[in-house]
Amino acid sequence: MIKAAIIGGSGYVGGELLRLLWFHPKVKVVTVTAGSHTGEPVSSIHPNLTKICNLKFTKENLKEISKTADVVFLALPHGISMGKVKDINLKKTKVIDMGADFRLKNLETFEKVYKTRHLQPENLVKAVYGLSELNLEKIKKAEIVACPGCFPTGALLALFPVAKKGLLSGKVIIDSKTGSSGSGIKLSAGSHHPERANDFKAYNIFSHRHFWEIEETLSNLQGTKVDMVFTAHSAPMVRGIFTTAYVFLDKSFEEKEIKKIYSEAYKNKPFIRLVPSPHVSVVSCTNYCDIGIYIKGKTLIVTSAIDNLVKGSAGQAVQNMNIMFGFPENIGLTFPGSHP
Amino acid sequence: MIKAAIIGGSGYVGGELLRLLWFHPKVKVVTVTAGSHTGEPVSSIHPNLTKICNLKFTKENLKEISKTADVVFLALPHGISMGKVKDINLKKTKVIDMGADFRLKNLETFEKVYKTRHLQPENLVKAVYGLSELNLEKIKKAEIVACPGCFPTGALLALFPVAKKGLLSGKVIIDSKTGSSGSGIKLSAGSHHPERANDFKAYNIFSHRHFWEIEETLSNLQGTKVDMVFTAHSAPMVRGIFTTAYVFLDKSFEEKEIKKIYSEAYKNKPFIRLVPSPHVSVVSCTNYCDIGIYIKGKTLIVTSAIDNLVKGSAGQAVQNMNIMFGFPENIGLTFPGSHP
Amino acid sequence: MIKAAIIGGSGYVGGELLRLLWFHPKVKVVTVTAGSHTGEPVSSIHPNLTKICNLKFTKENLKEISKTADVVFLALPHGISMGKVKDINLKKTKVIDMGADFRLKNLETFEKVYKTRHLQPENLVKAVYGLSELNLEKIKKAEIVACPGCFPTGALLALFPVAKKGLLSGKVIIDSKTGSSGSGIKLSAGSHHPERANDFKAYNIFSHRHFWEIEETLSNLQGTKVDMVFTAHSAPMVRGIFTTAYVFLDKSFEEKEIKKIYSEAYKNKPFIRLVPSPHVSVVSCTNYCDIGIYIKGKTLIVTSAIDNLVKGSAGQAVQNMNIMFGFPENIGLTFPGSHP
Amino acid sequence: MIKAAIIGGSGYVGGELLRLLWFHPKVKVVTVTAGSHTGEPVSSIHPNLTKICNLKFTKENLKEISKTADVVFLALPHGISMGKVKDINLKKTKVIDMGADFRLKNLETFEKVYKTRHLQPENLVKAVYGLSELNLEKIKKAEIVACPGCFPTGALLALFPVAKKGLLSGKVIIDSKTGSSGSGIKLSAGSHHPERANDFKAYNIFSHRHFWEIEETLSNLQGTKVDMVFTAHSAPMVRGIFTTAYVFLDKSFEEKEIKKIYSEAYKNKPFIRLVPSPHVSVVSCTNYCDIGIYIKGKTLIVTSAIDNLVKGSAGQAVQNMNIMFGFPENIGLTFPGSHP
Repeated sequence: MIKAAIIGGSGYVGGELLRLLWFHPKVKVVTVTAGSHTGEPVSSIHPNLTKICNLKFTKENLKEISKTADVVFLALPHGISMGKVKDINLKKTKVIDMGADFRLKNLETFEKVYKTRHLQPENLVKAVYGLSELNLEKIKKAEIVACPGCFPTGALLALFPVAKKGLLSGKVIIDSKTGSSGSGIKLSAGSHHPERANDFKAYNIFSHRHFWEIEETLSNLQGTKVDMVFTAHSAPMVRGIFTTAYVFLDKSFEEKEIKKIYSEAYKNKPFIRLVPSPHVSVVSCTNYCDIGIYIKGKTLIVTSAIDNLVKGSAGQAVQNMNIMFGFPENIGLTFPGSHP
Repeated sequence: MIKAAIIGGSGYVGGELLRLLWFHPKVKVVTVTAGSHTGEPVSSIHPNLTKICNLKFTKENLKEISKTADVVFLALPHGISMGKVKDINLKKTKVIDMGADFRLKNLETFEKVYKTRHLQPENLVKAVYGLSELNLEKIKKAEIVACPGCFPTGALLALFPVAKKGLLSGKVIIDSKTGSSGSGIKLSAGSHHPERANDFKAYNIFSHRHFWEIEETLSNLQGTKVDMVFTAHSAPMVRGIFTTAYVFLDKSFEEKEIKKIYSEAYKNKPFIRLVPSPHVSVVSCTNYCDIGIYIKGKTLIVTSAIDNLVKGSAGQAVQNMNIMFGFPENIGLTFPGSHP
Repeated sequence: MIKAAIIGGSGYVGGELLRLLWFHPKVKVVTVTAGSHTGEPVSSIHPNLTKICNLKFTKENLKEISKTADVVFLALPHGISMGKVKDINLKKTKVIDMGADFRLKNLETFEKVYKTRHLQPENLVKAVYGLSELNLEKIKKAEIVACPGCFPTGALLALFPVAKKGLLSGKVIIDSKTGSSGSGIKLSAGSHHPERANDFKAYNIFSHRHFWEIEETLSNLQGTKVDMVFTAHSAPMVRGIFTTAYVFLDKSFEEKEIKKIYSEAYKNKPFIRLVPSPHVSVVSCTNYCDIGIYIKGKTLIVTSAIDNLVKGSAGQAVQNMNIMFGFPENIGLTFPGSHP
Repeated sequence: MIKAAIIGGSGYVGGELLRLLWFHPKVKVVTVTAGSHTGEPVSSIHPNLTKICNLKFTKENLKEISKTADVVFLALPHGISMGKVKDINLKKTKVIDMGADFRLKNLETFEKVYKTRHLQPENLVKAVYGLSELNLEKIKKAEIVACPGCFPTGALLALFPVAKKGLLSGKVIIDSKTGSSGSGIKLSAGSHHPERANDFKAYNIFSHRHFWEIEETLSNLQGTKVDMVFTAHSAPMVRGIFTTAYVFLDKSFEEKEIKKIYSEAYKNKPFIRLVPSPHVSVVSCTNYCDIGIYIKGKTLIVTSAIDNLVKGSAGQAVQNMNIMFGFPENIGLTFPGSHP
């Protein structure tokens, strides 16, 4: 049993992480912090855990926590995590950050996109980008893992097999649709039920922060800068991200050739399923990513469906923890979705 | 053409009212006020009116407005309207209040329920309770009309025919279910899309303010205090209220007897439809109230479906205006719902 | 490890049961049948089980199945199960029926409500009504368990503590609201998304089959025939049943007195949670039943929230299996819901 | 007052058309037919019209209908309309077809896509493609108007201004998301509420029939074959289509240059609104098409939101009728959407 601490447990991501770790056979949750909720039972914020998890939110004291915890999960707003890491003894305690602070490898890009100076450039370099299916070997040895954003998870799982083969030399369009839980527990006009329930819209066109995260990773895989567009949309559902990726290839491929590239890239990956038609509802509340592959001449369309809070965040964080500590990659994460 | 002013046009009720009045063939909207939004186009808050209504929110100056307006609609939070009426010359300008300030006739009940002193007890007495189907003759001559709350509209239309006949001597249970627009444009945890979209709950059990409004009206009709219970529920939809009312009668009735009581009470009422099975979706965005009547021995069940923002508020306000100014009762309100 | 067979695995209830049993540490699923789907992978109907459960639907041959299976679950349309039981050796193989055929103890009532002759009156008598919290001791020794209907589960858990105390001498009104999964996988106009998504309605007023199931159980507990009304409603959600029960008591109770009755009745019941405000979303996809208790004088309101497919069907069936085989009551069912 | 007949009034499109025409100040609906529903009141299928429209479905007899009707609307499944037109005297009675039979101008494409021989190639040539904003002058003189499909309406209104300028020489990607009413009143697994309510998926990738309709129109405008991809998605809402179109231009444009192209193309078009951010909810149940324009270098993104049953079908049909008969283009269609 390893000891885990959750810093920032009052949001949807922190709550989902707690739910997963609480039932994880190799983990004991020793601390969950949540700023203004210190002293309250976790079930006062996450009523699903009533009579299940008897923890209370505690005060955040990272130096203290770091003494006992084998792993610290940071589920904090962007810009906060990077100020916390200095209080953790990385030789002793591993860090899994679920925010954006350690995702982008390029410091300049980070500071442009997040409009702030990075407080720990040395750890930015050291941190491993935690797309579990991409960086398995690096994650095994990492001291800090930066879990990908929810949109990047869906987009990169749809495209990394072809990027790794250098097939992204033409234009790439990524059109993603998310549920409302992606905006978090904080109230906002865009998540007000009367406005959201029957609506569909695009937002942050040409300026969504996840563009740079996807672009950096795909370009590194491709070996040259990928010419891509990314658009985020709000769909009237709670859970899930559906991504439709359009790739314009240099030459025609047969369906079976492309499918082989995917099945090889995802051999032994327990959470990737190549399916005829991904559905958000099928992967909802699971760590699975369902992928559909369609080709016509030089045009490749890849669709993916994930749950934004599980595979897109807390589930992938646990998957990374499993890898870091030498547990089976899927332990604690094997539950399926429901039907319907 | 009469001149109408809307005080408080930035909420859902005010916006719905503006939409209805803007297309009303007998009305010219001269002013729409909205506190902090003064100077902004109404379409900045109500995007459905883009390129349709070119008004801007103006500063509230009731004395000035009262000089030109034939009717002033007050779409304000509870407790505010009663402080405004003194600035309106009621001999010249009629007032239609959509808040709660003039609904309850019993001053003591008002002060207990709304936990505040009433600033205009004399106008409380004078104000007519604006359930159009109930108080047609009084509304014709009223200077101030207090439009009913949304739950009371659905509940009272379901029950007033039997109350008027004195049949409510036994227990009455009113179980109502509302959409999220009833809580207004202001953000709240209960209307946060991720929490609301797949949820159902009861709230304010034994303490919902609309209890006293329903009880007072039914008791006045019945002639003695009605022994009733009212429970409000949040349903995962945007528009509409569905009410299930259970009445325990002193003696058995045949179905046709009871239905006759309803068809007579609602003869010539353009917005009441007696139907086999009311559906919220059918009356959504309309001024109709669909009513279903079911009897078995001494147990009577009456169900009703209304749109909370139209028949439950802005539409009924316009209906009352039509009555007050001698227009056909249904003018400007004849539009049906959509299917689906 | 016991061996389980599922007869009728292609519906929502059968699929949910398969999902639960597949991960149950004490159970091996040996057979899943599904009439016209024989030979197809279960994941062709239940895509959530893709790459998780590799079973195929097999032909139904109960005599054969009964030779190996320790327990047979019947997830069949009403009227079918009672014709199947004769092929099962009840001394060797236990039967858990999820349909209505063995629920009502009164043969006359059964034949009136279901409009068919009962094929196995002797087993009707023998079968134990499988409301786990009510009949624990009988279920332990049962050969056939008849799992309650979904509405009765929510209603009876809300009321049995007071019925057992003989407090239901006055009127009882049960107003329930269900999600669309309750109508099953078969297409119907009432579950057509364009019609259902923004709608709310009541149905089968005074004639819903679950009335008699609730009435029989409550009356048996009370000792005299309970004077009750039950109304079912369709809510625009997929999962869950919310029940609002109104009880008119003979005398006033203090809140703590009533709450004590509930806490004692539900002591050691792992899936009952007494909470301030039950929410359907909180129990969704779980085996929990959350109960809220409110009293004012002689009027008692009890609300309950369950998941119709889990606690209202497949989950309760597994709970009953646990009890029948001497496993811990909650094994395989401890998972919480998600937030949101 | 002109006389209108609706052939096929029992679907969502026919019902919506009836609702619009019933309130149209220049139209009298003389006949609504609906095969198997002959003799039933229209409100038995469209309950929103209860107590509003007292018509009954009549038997279809086009020769007879054609004698009195000035205009016949065909709201029929694909492949049926083309067999009906021969019974209509086109010199006397205008035809507005809402199906696909007369949309594609290229006979070969039609027969390939719809897998059937065309029964009226001569009328295929004669029929005018009824995208009101594109073909105003031709529609004025048309005997047969073929109303566009719902996806093509949203996509073409997003792109025709740039196509007309010949700017579609590069790749064009059209990613569209539709509500469930687009699949019609007929029950289907994809529109089963339990499956649809929390789901998102793509369908008919590379093979959706609307691809060819969009491609033909854009290519005709551009002057050369446009290299495009179209993907349809199912979103968990009832009404509306949101389209995200990606255009790769030959050269960079400034935002104001592109916006000018749109504002000029849509000058005097009463139902087109150029807005900062189109929302499906804002145009729901209206004839408006809201368009958002975004450019970065050579990459142009255009988004559009329409209601699939109004602007995408019945509303546009009425708009075309207005044009054909010399009425103001927007008469009977000026109603706004609601908020929320």
